[in-house]
Amino acid sequence: MKLVPLADKVVVRQIPEDPKTPGGILLPEGRPGWIHQGRVLSVGDGWLLPDGSRAKLQIREGDRVLFQSPGTQIILNGESLLILSEEEVLAVVE
Amino acid sequence: MKLVPLADKVVVRQIPEDPKTPGGILLPEGRPGWIHQGRVLSVGDGWLLPDGSRAKLQIREGDRVLFQSPGTQIILNGESLLILSEEEVLAVVE
Amino acid sequence: MKLVPLADKVVVRQIPEDPKTPGGILLPEGRPGWIHQGRVLSVGDGWLLPDGSRAKLQIREGDRVLFQSPGTQIILNGESLLILSEEEVLAVVE
Amino acid sequence: MKLVPLADKVVVRQIPEDPKTPGGILLPEGRPGWIHQGRVLSVGDGWLLPDGSRAKLQIREGDRVLFQSPGTQIILNGESLLILSEEEVLAVVE
Amino acid sequence: MKLVPLADKVVVRQIPEDPKTPGGILLPEGRPGWIHQGRVLSVGDGWLLPDGSRAKLQIREGDRVLFQSPGTQIILNGESLLILSEEEVLAVVE
Amino acid sequence: MKLVPLADKVVVRQIPEDPKTPGGILLPEGRPGWIHQGRVLSVGDGWLLPDGSRAKLQIREGDRVLFQSPGTQIILNGESLLILSEEEVLAVVE
Amino acid sequence: MKLVPLADKVVVRQIPEDPKTPGGILLPEGRPGWIHQGRVLSVGDGWLLPDGSRAKLQIREGDRVLFQSPGTQIILNGESLLILSEEEVLAVVE
Repeated sequence: MKLVPLADKVVVRQIPEDPKTPGGILLPEGRPGWIHQGRVLSVGDGWLLPDGSRAKLQIREGDRVLFQSPGTQIILNGESLLILSEEEVLAVVE
Repeated sequence: MKLVPLADKVVVRQIPEDPKTPGGILLPEGRPGWIHQGRVLSVGDGWLLPDGSRAKLQIREGDRVLFQSPGTQIILNGESLLILSEEEVLAVVE
Repeated sequence: MKLVPLADKVVVRQIPEDPKTPGGILLPEGRPGWIHQGRVLSVGDGWLLPDGSRAKLQIREGDRVLFQSPGTQIILNGESLLILSEEEVLAVVE
Repeated sequence: MKLVPLADKVVVRQIPEDPKTPGGILLPEGRPGWIHQGRVLSVGDGWLLPDGSRAKLQIREGDRVLFQSPGTQIILNGESLLILSEEEVLAVVE
Repeated sequence: MKLVPLADKVVVRQIPEDPKTPGGILLPEGRPGWIHQGRVLSVGDGWLLPDGSRAKLQIREGDRVLFQSPGTQIILNGESLLILSEEEVLAVVE
Repeated sequence: MKLVPLADKVVVRQIPEDPKTPGGILLPEGRPGWIHQGRVLSVGDGWLLPDGSRAKLQIREGDRVLFQSPGTQIILNGESLLILSEEEVLAVVE
Repeated sequence: MKLVPLADKVVVRQIPEDPKTPGGILLPEGRPGWIHQGRVLSVGDGWLLPDGSRAKLQIREGDRVLFQSPGTQIILNGESLLILSEEEVLAVVE
């Protein structure tokens, strides 16, 4: 069973946060938001353009991404996944 | 009697949720939203483009889809159906 | 005396709801909205496109349509009519 | 003294409502809105298009129109007139 | 010292309202808004179009205009002037 | 050290208001807003157009401008400057 | 580990504010906002255009920028970074 996201959406497997990992990504304390990390499992066909074609997403399958939005969380085959719009992704971590 | 949705809309027959099915799709407990599944019965002619043509929907008849929106629920021939915009569909399940 | 709707608007004669008709269209109980049915009497010239032409509406005169919006109700020649935008029509019933 | 409306605007002379006229246009009782009738005295040059030209209005001088919006009311030469956008006009009565 | 308005803006010298002038323009009593008259002193270069050119305003220097918006009022050389967008002008009085 | 504004933004050196200067620009008393004057020090590359090019701003370096918006105020080299969008500029004073 | 921002986003290393530095950039006291400075570390591929291509950002890697928005703050490799949209950048300091 596999999730195929639509249009500008991507399916992401969240990477658990470990605030003690050196070199990791932290959100400064005392801030309301929280930065999440995830691995992209699948990507939609892209943004609909005025001529009816699609602009491919910049995010690729396998990318490690940062996002602040909680997204839409589901559990598939016992695994917690998130569906996000590419707009909600802040950056790719290389 | 058949429903023909307009433009970006699709008619979906909801699949009853069974939180015990292994390999099923669950929403984590304690979350306000709720993910629904459904089978697509018919799809609209697509998104209106600036040149007056239509961009076909990505969803096809027979697709199994995930959505969080409650949609517009109606009962046709004793069967509960939903009308959703393609935008409200999160992903196709393959 | 006849009503000619503008642009994306359609004139609809509401079909009285009979929740007991078998094969009819019902809204599940306990829901805030209510699905209405109607017969389309006349349709506007369509959506204005960037080149100044009009994209014809998908709804045709004589169509039987479903809608949730109350629309704008008027009484013409003793008959209750509604004016709706095509966007407010959920589906055509065939 | 004459009013020349701009762009999508039309000048309308309201037709007094007579709820007893047979064949007239009534709003069902107990509804918050109210449908008005009027005769179009003059029309604007139309909607600005992306190429800088104008899409002519569908409403013509002399049309009898229905509208729900109160519009902007002024008194010119002792006569009560309304200025409306074509978007606020529901239908032309023929 | 002269004001050159930008884009869709016009500079207007307000015409004092005299509710007793026969043939004048009145707002019916008991209405919250108020219609103002003015003479156009200068006009902007027009609306920016997608190709980077400008669509000239429909209002011309010297036009007598009606508007409901208070606009932005300034006093230049002892004279009270208003800056309005063309969108805020209801009609030209001929 | 110099400020290069982006896109539709301009850098303005505010001209102190002197309500007693004859021929000056005043805001009528008792009004909530306040009209400011300034000299334009630098201008952005202009508005992004759909083809990726830029529509040059109408405001030029050296222009004396009127604006009601407070803008974003900063102190650079001991001098108070404002950053405004061209949209916030009401008119050029000649 | 490096952050690659998407689309219109840029990654910025904030420059600590020193209100005593002569020639520095200050926000006048008693104002609610606060101007920040930063050095641009990486920039996104640019704004999506209607033909599917990207309009390159005006900001370049290495630019010193001013911004009022707090942005999205993260700590990467012990260093505090911000992710901003180019729209949130007020000006480049040269």
